[in-house]
Amino acid sequence: MDLHGKDLICTQEWAVEELEAVLSLAAEMKRERFTHRYNNCLAQKTFFMFFYNPSVRTRQSFECAATELGGHAQFLEPGAMRLKTATTAGETIEDAAEVMSRYAVGLGIRILEDKISAYGEGDDLLREYARWAEIPIISMAHDKYHPCQGLADIVGLREHLGQDLKGKRLLMMWGHGALVRSWCSVQENLLICSRFGMDITLAHPEGYDLDPEVIAAVGENCASHGSRFEIIQDSKAGYEGAEVVYGRNWMSPQAYKDGVLDKPGEIEKALRHPQWICDAEKMALTNDALYIHPMPVDRGHEVTDEVASGPRSIIYDVAENRLHVQKALMALTMGSLEDV
Amino acid sequence: MDLHGKDLICTQEWAVEELEAVLSLAAEMKRERFTHRYNNCLAQKTFFMFFYNPSVRTRQSFECAATELGGHAQFLEPGAMRLKTATTAGETIEDAAEVMSRYAVGLGIRILEDKISAYGEGDDLLREYARWAEIPIISMAHDKYHPCQGLADIVGLREHLGQDLKGKRLLMMWGHGALVRSWCSVQENLLICSRFGMDITLAHPEGYDLDPEVIAAVGENCASHGSRFEIIQDSKAGYEGAEVVYGRNWMSPQAYKDGVLDKPGEIEKALRHPQWICDAEKMALTNDALYIHPMPVDRGHEVTDEVASGPRSIIYDVAENRLHVQKALMALTMGSLEDV
Amino acid sequence: MDLHGKDLICTQEWAVEELEAVLSLAAEMKRERFTHRYNNCLAQKTFFMFFYNPSVRTRQSFECAATELGGHAQFLEPGAMRLKTATTAGETIEDAAEVMSRYAVGLGIRILEDKISAYGEGDDLLREYARWAEIPIISMAHDKYHPCQGLADIVGLREHLGQDLKGKRLLMMWGHGALVRSWCSVQENLLICSRFGMDITLAHPEGYDLDPEVIAAVGENCASHGSRFEIIQDSKAGYEGAEVVYGRNWMSPQAYKDGVLDKPGEIEKALRHPQWICDAEKMALTNDALYIHPMPVDRGHEVTDEVASGPRSIIYDVAENRLHVQKALMALTMGSLEDV
Repeated sequence: MDLHGKDLICTQEWAVEELEAVLSLAAEMKRERFTHRYNNCLAQKTFFMFFYNPSVRTRQSFECAATELGGHAQFLEPGAMRLKTATTAGETIEDAAEVMSRYAVGLGIRILEDKISAYGEGDDLLREYARWAEIPIISMAHDKYHPCQGLADIVGLREHLGQDLKGKRLLMMWGHGALVRSWCSVQENLLICSRFGMDITLAHPEGYDLDPEVIAAVGENCASHGSRFEIIQDSKAGYEGAEVVYGRNWMSPQAYKDGVLDKPGEIEKALRHPQWICDAEKMALTNDALYIHPMPVDRGHEVTDEVASGPRSIIYDVAENRLHVQKALMALTMGSLEDV
Repeated sequence: MDLHGKDLICTQEWAVEELEAVLSLAAEMKRERFTHRYNNCLAQKTFFMFFYNPSVRTRQSFECAATELGGHAQFLEPGAMRLKTATTAGETIEDAAEVMSRYAVGLGIRILEDKISAYGEGDDLLREYARWAEIPIISMAHDKYHPCQGLADIVGLREHLGQDLKGKRLLMMWGHGALVRSWCSVQENLLICSRFGMDITLAHPEGYDLDPEVIAAVGENCASHGSRFEIIQDSKAGYEGAEVVYGRNWMSPQAYKDGVLDKPGEIEKALRHPQWICDAEKMALTNDALYIHPMPVDRGHEVTDEVASGPRSIIYDVAENRLHVQKALMALTMGSLEDV
Repeated sequence: MDLHGKDLICTQEWAVEELEAVLSLAAEMKRERFTHRYNNCLAQKTFFMFFYNPSVRTRQSFECAATELGGHAQFLEPGAMRLKTATTAGETIEDAAEVMSRYAVGLGIRILEDKISAYGEGDDLLREYARWAEIPIISMAHDKYHPCQGLADIVGLREHLGQDLKGKRLLMMWGHGALVRSWCSVQENLLICSRFGMDITLAHPEGYDLDPEVIAAVGENCASHGSRFEIIQDSKAGYEGAEVVYGRNWMSPQAYKDGVLDKPGEIEKALRHPQWICDAEKMALTNDALYIHPMPVDRGHEVTDEVASGPRSIIYDVAENRLHVQKALMALTMGSLEDV
């Protein structure tokens, strides 16, 4: 299997065996953090990071990953780029991508929230870069998907539940709060967990549907495994028997109005649902469930301190795994493995 | 020949043999990109990059260059520096330059467009840094010159026209558009191409004269080779017989008014000349000319897509060469070549 | 002595023997800059730098330090982080610090001036990070202290006055000017110089008292050595017999009003004292004193050009020493010394 040069925009577009190659290398690299045989596979090579939106953790983990592989991640804010649009002069993505392919071994892009004017625009941009670039395009979280988060979730779940996740019961639960989060992490998690055979309950208040295409894909993933997929609008019922609880806020499908993210409206709407919080009382209904979240956690809204800092919370392990899966991904898609 | 410690503000200030040393090393480094014997000549060393103006490509290529030589380029935005001016308290360039000389092996500076209040101010600033710094000052594009772009142009032309450029015919043509570009790339190209013996036709509308001192120097360069230098105000006549066409927008000599770059006025004025575009019909008049441009290209204004993406366009090769000439330049002026 | 994992928020909290370990390694690393046996002790490791306030020199010296030890310093602007506060949703310092401890080997933080609403807030923030992080927290200058500057001062003074500073006479003199500087560098210098047995005269106009707790600690340091500590409100009297003059502006204790740094008020107040400048006439009264300053120097206000650029000025040496003490500090608190 040769993953060299392959884009990663959504895990759903990779074969399970390809995902397994990344996951098993990530686990290896976690055990042998500074001694793994691929540890110089990016020596003197450059990975570009395009942050349309700022991010602390994604930037930290990608830049660490390149450093730990002997290379260097350049932190670029494309706000400084004059890209051609329908109404303004500037550079085409074709030109930008062709030149970057001459300099670097890969390009990560993050674009979501207020840097797009409608859901899907970020995904379109990544695919336009992927069309022209000769180097891999890696999503560092965009409006639709967050593949590296999904891979980190799986590594974390396997560390705590064992290698075979088939039939394990996941509750993906909407949480209230004032952060108006994108759909990328939760959609990615639903896709990859269903891909690995988990039973899934998705719980959210009325008016918080996710992307219908993603929901359809999750349904097909579950069907192919014969596993369960249900969507409920109850803040409590899903906990019973759950082995993993993923509690996270997300915006409504009406969040973008006239090309602008309506943050005040979304906050006001989300705060109407204070019962949508993951707390110890509800966790007591589960099958000793793990608590998982892509961070940053909005404590007091999405989850109580007691749960987030409790013995079944694996949030720091999953955050750490971002580093390892990204190292594995970069090694396999961009690294000089023949040199090791 | 020892180039260690030498500033590069304009290629005209270097001997041709010195430029040839950079050019030939750049060609070598391109062939042996990750295996060249100088590939660790900046190991654990720092190159400072001062970006008064943002730039994607210049930053990418310089930071990659340092990484590929084993070192690290620090991206610094001197907007955060409080420099002393006639009216405000702050640090002198003497103090800033003396301390930076203790930390780094070289300092690149980019300053042009809206970060200066009159043509020539950027050049003055670089020379003030060069006066005090004990490390090489490298222009990363300033109002007057862009030496690394000029060197990359020559590498690209030689790759496609052969090593000896003497007598080859260059058309430097103004293009219309809304980007109000500085003179640095075109002035640098005229200087270095005339230095290497090319025949030059400079074509622009009335009111778009370049720096008279630069034009005089180009004239002298041509005279010393017995080559031709003509300036015309015709958007078509210069194409006949050309072997290289460089089509690029630039601002007028009236662009700075009362210390401010008058962008709206310049855009309005430039857009009055829509016939000043490099298109396939005009390129058909040439001697199968190469199309060259320092990028980013303003497609649809400076040049049509058909030409920019056509078989004779070498824009991506030239952009790639920025990396290689900058590596060669850094190796020769800042590197520890004795260690290799 | 094992310094691995130790925070450095103020030198006063370290034993003298621990400070000596850093100082002697710094001197060694200065002599053997690219050949020292610890030169790869951060290989492929990451140091995070959190700049709440911008800084050119601190950023340059820390990033160079990590590079020269084989590692990489990530420049992070936590303005992009949504931290939880009393009134806004966001991430807790607990969560941020726990995750960063999984990625990096150390975290430097700079917070002072307009990024705090009252003196002491920056110090509280560093201690909150130190509470949760499993990696060393290093002050890169905060409202109260600037330990790396203090260490660099001592290396510089020893280079020029000899290893034993006991009984050497330091004049710390307030300077007028428009820069409204924090107390961190001067407080740190008073603490560390008194720790090493120097006699100290602190001179400032009425209304420019420093932190009473720091002054008390300086008094105790002096008492334990039997050395002298006096505070005077005279712009000239302290020069007589001084062997070191540290001339620097600082803000008044009334600088923060209603949670905001009152810059215009402070500038107006400071400029009322033009006689508070270190000049050649006053320096002639000293015992051929060295001039020392943490830079950037406000020439013409704090000190005249004649003194700052004169033969007894050691400002560039001290600035250079920032690099070496930070390398030594990082090696001892974060480095893999067992691997060398």
